[in-house]
Amino acid sequence: MRDSQLGIGVVGYGYWGPNLVRNFSVNPAARVVGVSDLDPGRLGAIRQLYPAVETTPRYDDLLNDSSIDAIAIATPVRTHYELAIAALRAGKHVLVEKPLAPSAEQAMRLIDEADRRGLTLMVDHTFLYTPAVQKIRELLLKRELGDIYYYDSTRSSLGLFQKDVNVIWDLAVHDISIIHHILDEEPVAVSATGSCHVAGSPENMAHITLFFANACVAHVSVNWLSPVKVRQTFIGGSKKMIVYDDLEPTEKIKVYDKGITLDASTEDAHQFRIGYRAGDMWAPHISPHEALQTEVGHFLDCVRSGSRPISDGTSALRVIEVLEAASRSIAEHGKPVLLKQPQLVRERARATA
Amino acid sequence: MRDSQLGIGVVGYGYWGPNLVRNFSVNPAARVVGVSDLDPGRLGAIRQLYPAVETTPRYDDLLNDSSIDAIAIATPVRTHYELAIAALRAGKHVLVEKPLAPSAEQAMRLIDEADRRGLTLMVDHTFLYTPAVQKIRELLLKRELGDIYYYDSTRSSLGLFQKDVNVIWDLAVHDISIIHHILDEEPVAVSATGSCHVAGSPENMAHITLFFANACVAHVSVNWLSPVKVRQTFIGGSKKMIVYDDLEPTEKIKVYDKGITLDASTEDAHQFRIGYRAGDMWAPHISPHEALQTEVGHFLDCVRSGSRPISDGTSALRVIEVLEAASRSIAEHGKPVLLKQPQLVRERARATA
Amino acid sequence: MRDSQLGIGVVGYGYWGPNLVRNFSVNPAARVVGVSDLDPGRLGAIRQLYPAVETTPRYDDLLNDSSIDAIAIATPVRTHYELAIAALRAGKHVLVEKPLAPSAEQAMRLIDEADRRGLTLMVDHTFLYTPAVQKIRELLLKRELGDIYYYDSTRSSLGLFQKDVNVIWDLAVHDISIIHHILDEEPVAVSATGSCHVAGSPENMAHITLFFANACVAHVSVNWLSPVKVRQTFIGGSKKMIVYDDLEPTEKIKVYDKGITLDASTEDAHQFRIGYRAGDMWAPHISPHEALQTEVGHFLDCVRSGSRPISDGTSALRVIEVLEAASRSIAEHGKPVLLKQPQLVRERARATA
Amino acid sequence: MRDSQLGIGVVGYGYWGPNLVRNFSVNPAARVVGVSDLDPGRLGAIRQLYPAVETTPRYDDLLNDSSIDAIAIATPVRTHYELAIAALRAGKHVLVEKPLAPSAEQAMRLIDEADRRGLTLMVDHTFLYTPAVQKIRELLLKRELGDIYYYDSTRSSLGLFQKDVNVIWDLAVHDISIIHHILDEEPVAVSATGSCHVAGSPENMAHITLFFANACVAHVSVNWLSPVKVRQTFIGGSKKMIVYDDLEPTEKIKVYDKGITLDASTEDAHQFRIGYRAGDMWAPHISPHEALQTEVGHFLDCVRSGSRPISDGTSALRVIEVLEAASRSIAEHGKPVLLKQPQLVRERARATA
Repeated sequence: MRDSQLGIGVVGYGYWGPNLVRNFSVNPAARVVGVSDLDPGRLGAIRQLYPAVETTPRYDDLLNDSSIDAIAIATPVRTHYELAIAALRAGKHVLVEKPLAPSAEQAMRLIDEADRRGLTLMVDHTFLYTPAVQKIRELLLKRELGDIYYYDSTRSSLGLFQKDVNVIWDLAVHDISIIHHILDEEPVAVSATGSCHVAGSPENMAHITLFFANACVAHVSVNWLSPVKVRQTFIGGSKKMIVYDDLEPTEKIKVYDKGITLDASTEDAHQFRIGYRAGDMWAPHISPHEALQTEVGHFLDCVRSGSRPISDGTSALRVIEVLEAASRSIAEHGKPVLLKQPQLVRERARATA
Repeated sequence: MRDSQLGIGVVGYGYWGPNLVRNFSVNPAARVVGVSDLDPGRLGAIRQLYPAVETTPRYDDLLNDSSIDAIAIATPVRTHYELAIAALRAGKHVLVEKPLAPSAEQAMRLIDEADRRGLTLMVDHTFLYTPAVQKIRELLLKRELGDIYYYDSTRSSLGLFQKDVNVIWDLAVHDISIIHHILDEEPVAVSATGSCHVAGSPENMAHITLFFANACVAHVSVNWLSPVKVRQTFIGGSKKMIVYDDLEPTEKIKVYDKGITLDASTEDAHQFRIGYRAGDMWAPHISPHEALQTEVGHFLDCVRSGSRPISDGTSALRVIEVLEAASRSIAEHGKPVLLKQPQLVRERARATA
Repeated sequence: MRDSQLGIGVVGYGYWGPNLVRNFSVNPAARVVGVSDLDPGRLGAIRQLYPAVETTPRYDDLLNDSSIDAIAIATPVRTHYELAIAALRAGKHVLVEKPLAPSAEQAMRLIDEADRRGLTLMVDHTFLYTPAVQKIRELLLKRELGDIYYYDSTRSSLGLFQKDVNVIWDLAVHDISIIHHILDEEPVAVSATGSCHVAGSPENMAHITLFFANACVAHVSVNWLSPVKVRQTFIGGSKKMIVYDDLEPTEKIKVYDKGITLDASTEDAHQFRIGYRAGDMWAPHISPHEALQTEVGHFLDCVRSGSRPISDGTSALRVIEVLEAASRSIAEHGKPVLLKQPQLVRERARATA
Repeated sequence: MRDSQLGIGVVGYGYWGPNLVRNFSVNPAARVVGVSDLDPGRLGAIRQLYPAVETTPRYDDLLNDSSIDAIAIATPVRTHYELAIAALRAGKHVLVEKPLAPSAEQAMRLIDEADRRGLTLMVDHTFLYTPAVQKIRELLLKRELGDIYYYDSTRSSLGLFQKDVNVIWDLAVHDISIIHHILDEEPVAVSATGSCHVAGSPENMAHITLFFANACVAHVSVNWLSPVKVRQTFIGGSKKMIVYDDLEPTEKIKVYDKGITLDASTEDAHQFRIGYRAGDMWAPHISPHEALQTEVGHFLDCVRSGSRPISDGTSALRVIEVLEAASRSIAEHGKPVLLKQPQLVRERARATA
C-alpha cells in the first residue's frame, strides 16, 4: 500500500540525518524517497544501507520531486531558514532540527509562510517526545511535586564545537523547550554568563538563570568542554523532588519524598521553624521507547490530519526568544534581560492554534 | 608533659563543635580545657564523653581561664565577630568557623586586632586542608592541566536552613576559598542569581559566576533544597581536566587526558579546525587523612611559631568580599558587580605577611 | 544515678573495640568501667579520649572487678572461647564479637555455661541490628517479594588478612547470620570453593552455595583481595526483587517490581510461556541509626530483663555449623556437605528458648 | 566492484540476526545476499530496511544460492549443528552464534567437516573482539598484573529465558571463552551449582568455579532473574588488579595499583607480615569500536586467506567441554568434575592449526 505512505525527503546526512532516515524508514506510514547531502561519501553510505533511497547532492532535486510530501532538515543552523522557506514554498511540510532558525525574526517568517500555505511546520525538540519528559510532565500536571521551586539542569560533554552557533543554541535549547513544556509559567527575564576558551569560536560554556513571575527559578548549565558527559536535571517542589538523569539506562527518573516542613511557632506567627522530611524514593518505570520514533509518528499524524504539532513553530519561536535574550545577557556579563511580552506571545500562540 | 600542651577552649557545641573537640583531644600538642555552650543538654553530652573537660554556659569563663591559650569558635555566623574580638582582647589566639565574620568590615577589624596583639587569627576553611584539594593544588601548580579554563562546582543537599546567613555564606564560601587557594588569578567581577523558596528565610539556592582577567571562569552552584547530596567540581584545562567528587570514598579525583586540539588550517590562518582528544583517565591515590586533624595541627603550629596560617584573616577577608559582591548581584538579578581592587587587596595581604 | 547503670568491661581495643567503647559510653544505661588490652599504646589512646575509664594489660583485672556486670570481647577469634568461658565463670554477662567461637563444639560449651548460670550470652552479629536488614526482614515477613528464589551476596575489599581464620569466618559469617535471620527455611547442604593466594595463609577468597529444601538457594562470595569494596546483596522473589547495597549512603535498599510471568499455553498445559514484567522501583527510607548503638541497647536490655537476645548463643552456633560445613566443602573442591539435622538444631533452640 | 565482495547468507533474524545483517551490510568486503527465517513478520522487517536483500522462509534457498559464499547462523542452539553441517556440506564457510553446538561431540564433527573441506568454521564469541577484552589480554600478556590470582565475573539481568539451553550455555559461555583467551593456563576441574526457579525450565541461575593447576581460580556467576543488569569482572594479580565493567560507557577498565605486600619476619622465615598497598587507579582509553564489526571483518579475512580464526572450532570445543563439565557438576550439587586431558585438547588444537 505504498500509495498511502507519505513520501519523505531528508536534507543533511551528518550527525542527526541518519537517525531521521532510520526512523522514517521503519515507520510504515512513510517512505524515504530521497536524501540530499553535499558530501559524496555520505551519499555512498546511504546507498550501502538503503539501496532503494535516491541520493543527490542537489537539494532542489528533493523540492522538485512530486512524490515527496515532506522534508526533514538536518543541516547546520545557519542554513535552516533558507532550506525550510524553500521547502514550504515548494508546498512541502517541514520538520527542522532544533533550533528552528538562528533568529526569532526568521522563525516568525517560517511560521507565517507555513500558516499561509496550511503546511505543517514542526521543530525537532526531541526531548519533548521522550518517555522520561512525558512522565515528568504528567507528574507536574498532577501536582505530585506541589509548588515548583526550581528546575536546575546540567548538560555537558566533550561535545562537537559548532562554528555557527554557541553552546546555548546547541544544548540549552533542549532545556528551554522542556521548561516551556512542563511548567505552567513562562519566564519573564533571563540572566546568563558564558565563556569562550577557543579564540575565534563561539561560547563553549554557559550558565543561564530564568526568572519567573512566581518564586520558581530555572537554571541551565551547558558545556562543550567537559571531561565526562552529564545529563542531569533536578526539579524541586514543595512536596516532592525529582532527579532526572538521562544517562541512566533504566531508572531515569527518581522521585524523592523529601523536603522541608514549616511549623509556625506559637510565640511569633511570623517565625517558622524549618524541619526536614526524608521519605521514600520512587523510580517510575520508563518505557525504553525511542523518542525520535514517537516524534516522527507525531509529525506524520500532524501532516495527515492538519493538527498542530506539540513542537510547532510558535513553541520553537518562544525557545528562540529566550536564547536571544540569554545571548544578550551573556554579552553583558549576566545583566538581566527582560523577555518581551510573554503573554502576548502566548495569546498569539492561542490565536493561531 | 602537659605543660607543653596548648590549652584550648571551644565555644559552641552544636554541629561543628564536637568535631573540633574530638580533633583537639587526639592531638598530643593540645589539651581541651573547657567548652561553653548555652544548651545544658549539650554540656551534659560533653561530660559523658569527656569527663575531664570543664563545661560552662558562660563564655567569659573560657576568657578568664589563664590555662586556655586559644579559643575555637563554632557558633552561628552573626556571633563570630563579637566572640572573636573578645577572645583576641583577652589575649587568646583564635580559630573561627567559616565565614570569619558576616561582613568585610568586621573581618578587617579582627585582622587588625590580631595583628596589633601578635595573635594568631585563623578561619576554618576546612577544605583547604583536605588531601583532595591539596592534590588538586599540586597538579595545578605543576601545570598538569595546562591553562585553566574553568572551575565549575555544585554543592547541594537537603541542608540545614540557616537563619542568619543565606546559602552562599554557608556553602559557596567553601568553593570561593578553594578557588582563591588553587588558582593564580583573583576574580575581578561576579554575577550571581539566587532564590528564596521559604518566605522570610534567606536565599536557599544560588548560582555564582566569577569572572577573571584572563579567559578563566568559575561557577558555583549551591542549594539547601536538593533531594540528594552533591559535592562535585569540574576543572577544565587546555591539557587535562579534573572531576573532583568529594562523596567518592576513595577515587575523589579523576584526571582526564581529554580535550580539544586546534589545527590551523592551511588556507586561512585565522580558521582553526577543532579536533577531540580522548586519552586515559587517572585517579591519584588520595590519603584518607581527616582534614580537620591537619588543620588543627596547622593552627597549633602557627600559634607556637607565630607563622601565618594558610587560611589567615586576610584570605578570609578576600572570600567575604566575594560573598558580599555576590549578594549585591543577587539583589539585582545577576547584574555584574566589580570586585574592588583585587591587586590592592593582594598587596595589603603581602604587606601584612 | 550511676547505681542504675550496668558496669561494662571491654577486652581488646584493636579494630572493633573502640566502637564498642564508644557505643557503651554514650548509652545512659551503661558505664564503661575498664578496658584491657595487651598493647600499652592502645591503652594510652583510651586514656587520652576517656580519662575516666580504667585501663589494664591484665584481663583478670576486669574479671575481678565487682563493678563490672558484663564483658564485651573484641579479640582475635582463637581467644574467644577462653575469654568468654572465663567471663561466664566469673559471673559476667558476655557479648562476643563474631564468630562466637572457632568451633561448634566450643560454642555449645559456652551456651551450656551461660544457660546453667542464667547469664546473657550474645554474639555481635552487627548486621542483624542495621535498619537495612531489619527493613528487608520486614518486607520478607510481609511476603512482599512472594516466594524467595535466591539470596546472592558479594562482600569483598582489600581486607585485613587474618591469621587465625579464613575469609569465610571473617566475612561470610555476616551473610550466614543474615540469611538465617530473614529466611524461613534453614539450609540443608552447602557447597563451597576457596582459594589461598598467599602461601601459609588461610583462604582469602571463597564462594559458598547454600541449598534449601525448597527451590531457594543462597550464594555468598567473599574476598579479602578485591581492589574495591563491595557490599551488595540481591534477593530475588516471585513477585519482587531487592538490591541491598550497604555502601550506598541513603538508598541502601531498592525494591524492584520486576520479574517474570508464566502463562500456561492453551495447547499444552505443561508448557509455559515466560514473559517479563518491568515495573517501578522503590527505595524505602532507611533510618541512619547506627546498628551497634541498637545492638548495645538490646544487649543491655537482655542483661537487665533476662530475655534471650536476637543473636543469642544458639543462633551463633547455627552460623558456625554452616561455616564448618563450608570449610569441609572447600577442602574437597566444592563437594556438597550435608548440614546435620537442622530440625534438631531448631528444636534444641526452641527447647532452650 | 561487487565481484570482489563475499556473498553472505544469514539464517535467523530474531535477537542477534539483525546485528549480523547490519554489520555485514556496512562491511565493503561483503554483500548480504539473502536472509532466511521462519517468521514472515521478520522477513517483512528485513525488506523494509534492506530492500536489496532476498528473504526466504526456506534455509535451502540460501544453501542452493551459488552467490552465497558464507552462512551466518543466528538460530536457537539446538539447531546449530544441523544448520552448520548442512552449510559446510554445501561448501559454505560458516559463522555460528555461540555456543557452536549443544555438545562437544557435535562440535567435533563440525570441526572435522570444516577441516576436511578446507572451509572456515568460526564461532561468534563476540567478547573476544571487544576493545575492552583485547586491552585486558594485552595487559596480562605484558604481565602488568603480575601473577594472576583470580578472575571473578558476574553476568546477570532480567534475561530471556531460553528453552533449549540453561543459563550457563547462554551467559557463562562468554566468560569461559574470555578466560581461555586471556589466561595462559587451562582449567583442570570445575565445581558448579545451579538453580531453577521456574518448573519445567532449565537452570536460570548458576555459579561456576574453575580450578587451575596453579593458584589461579576463576568464578563465574550468571543469572537470568536479576532485577538489574550486571556485567562486571574482577581480575586480581600479585601486582595490580582490574575491574572491568562492560556497562560503563567509557571507563570500562580500571587498573588498580593495589595489593598486598609480604615481608618475611626476621624471627621466623615461614611467617610473613602481610601489608597493604593502595596506589593510583588508571583507566586506559578504550576505543568505542563495535566488536561485531571487528569480528565480521576477521571472519571475512579468514575466509579469503584461509587463516584460522581466533574463535575457531577448536576454541569453541574447549568452551563447550567446560560447559558440559559444569552441567555435570550442577547435577551433583557442586561435586568437582575433572576436565579431560586439557593438554591433549591443546595438542590437538596445535596439530590442526
